[in-house]
Amino acid sequence: MTLNLKDQLQHKIDLKTKPHGALGQLESIALQLGLIQNTLSPKLEKPSLLVFAADHGLADEGVSPYPKEVTWQMVMNFCGGGAAINVFCKQNGIDLKVIDAGVDYDFPAELPITNAKIARGSRNMMNEPAMSLEECKLAMQRGAQFVKKEAEAGCNTIGFGEMGIGNTSPSSLLMHRFMKLPIEQCTGKGAGMTGDKLDHKTAILKAVSEKYNPQSALETLATFGGLEIAMMVGAILEARKLGMVILIDGFIATSATLTAIQFDESVRENCIFCHASEEQGHQLVLNFLQARPVLSLGMRLGEGSGAAVAFPVIRAAATFLNEMASFEDAGVSNKA
Amino acid sequence: MTLNLKDQLQHKIDLKTKPHGALGQLESIALQLGLIQNTLSPKLEKPSLLVFAADHGLADEGVSPYPKEVTWQMVMNFCGGGAAINVFCKQNGIDLKVIDAGVDYDFPAELPITNAKIARGSRNMMNEPAMSLEECKLAMQRGAQFVKKEAEAGCNTIGFGEMGIGNTSPSSLLMHRFMKLPIEQCTGKGAGMTGDKLDHKTAILKAVSEKYNPQSALETLATFGGLEIAMMVGAILEARKLGMVILIDGFIATSATLTAIQFDESVRENCIFCHASEEQGHQLVLNFLQARPVLSLGMRLGEGSGAAVAFPVIRAAATFLNEMASFEDAGVSNKA
Repeated sequence: MTLNLKDQLQHKIDLKTKPHGALGQLESIALQLGLIQNTLSPKLEKPSLLVFAADHGLADEGVSPYPKEVTWQMVMNFCGGGAAINVFCKQNGIDLKVIDAGVDYDFPAELPITNAKIARGSRNMMNEPAMSLEECKLAMQRGAQFVKKEAEAGCNTIGFGEMGIGNTSPSSLLMHRFMKLPIEQCTGKGAGMTGDKLDHKTAILKAVSEKYNPQSALETLATFGGLEIAMMVGAILEARKLGMVILIDGFIATSATLTAIQFDESVRENCIFCHASEEQGHQLVLNFLQARPVLSLGMRLGEGSGAAVAFPVIRAAATFLNEMASFEDAGVSNKA
Repeated sequence: MTLNLKDQLQHKIDLKTKPHGALGQLESIALQLGLIQNTLSPKLEKPSLLVFAADHGLADEGVSPYPKEVTWQMVMNFCGGGAAINVFCKQNGIDLKVIDAGVDYDFPAELPITNAKIARGSRNMMNEPAMSLEECKLAMQRGAQFVKKEAEAGCNTIGFGEMGIGNTSPSSLLMHRFMKLPIEQCTGKGAGMTGDKLDHKTAILKAVSEKYNPQSALETLATFGGLEIAMMVGAILEARKLGMVILIDGFIATSATLTAIQFDESVRENCIFCHASEEQGHQLVLNFLQARPVLSLGMRLGEGSGAAVAFPVIRAAATFLNEMASFEDAGVSNKA
């Protein structure tokens, strides 16, 4: 009788020189990596992280403590190498690419940003859906193209980040719709909305939710999403198709994953949830997706920062699977 | 008015281009690193990990599912580069040194192990104290010397691991005495003692505890400890004296830290607790030490493996503090 790949991987893990199960979650990650790559020796090659940036019309309603121009200012900061995601990617050997999915600003052509602007931000959902179906589809297609390009360059492990003042709001709305949870449970402080400000944000999201009744996943994403989120959804779907390891960051990326799963449930198999964000609602989505996050550091920054910080821990799972000796190799007794 | 270093560090952290507190625990680690090194720009130089190995007379009472010879076999595995700690140190650029504190085996002279054997294992505590006071002091002194040597070579960040079949038992006994907790709360499955086997282990530790009534920290360590644990205690105390960042691994290393704190309370300031072990009792010691572990991956391997896997996450704290732009540098609005 030949063992299937899953059993073979588990067998390989169990024969390493350590007590049974002693590497905990690293063992389940190793198993997942092997299954994603369909091999007993998974390797994380040319890891890359795409940051999608866009503005949000809903920011006009005061759902973020930061002014809208912080979106383009932070994109400039990414270009200058000074943001958290820059320094974490550099530390961990991750190739970082910044993509303008829809920022309300004209960036100088010489900057290291890819211009994939669909519009100058999504629309204010208090007045009309965030995107047209065409804009949403186009954003998803472009996201897929960027991933394909990374894969063609030899990358098999990809993470996604985002920058967009106001983008916890669309994430909360998507979670609220796809998980059928009250908006209050899905809404958190984002970049710093507490007390009355959080009440205001929640009231706005409630009002937005009551205005629309989209049916399909695409309609829901177009209505309540954002350009960077739609691009991320397309990117996640493509990364699954290409058999890549997908590094999921915090609240916004997890909400994009939840959305991608409405299009293709199998996406879940390729996703590693890198950290539990402090953002209210994130733990609920993680539970819903039966995801055990790699890190729980109380971070709530976005940009893909959690994915970049978690990457060496995920790499450690591949490392032990490929490089540790078995009891037999090492001549160690395994009589336990 | 000039700010003290702590306030200056907090100020530097708060001016980075991110919402206030958005890097969570990385921010508190950055603060701690700055305070340990007495600088606004802490750097983790030449990280090193010392693994102390020793045998335990108490293993004769059947407190581990593995036979005693696994201690020397695993030391041989360390020398061959095949153990978890080898591959994790290699991945993360940590210099690994293996030290024979008291293994009941004669290693070939050409192996990359430092011979610091105090005895061929500690004594069986069912019959007599684990070590004499002289042996215990000598082990602590040697541990201190190894740390001094690392510091002289330019290392300012040091982790400690251990290998010793049976060594969760002395760790449980030390915790039981220093925290004044019932032995049942301090005893866990170690490398795999469950059900009746765990009951047996607990009964043995209870019997051992009832035999002795040591008073000072040194007497307690000599009575209930182990040679590798005593060496680690001396190493931790010296690392504190030398102002090093100390990476504390799981249950056994935390128990050694608890012991070191009985000699010098200030040791706590230099310790970063790298992971929460699955071993019963570890969370209780962590709570007692008011420690929030960096990782919670359900690992329970020892060897320093949790410290080695956590290292890049700890490095990320120094990275953001040193390399991220401030709001002012980056021209980003900070009106939140």
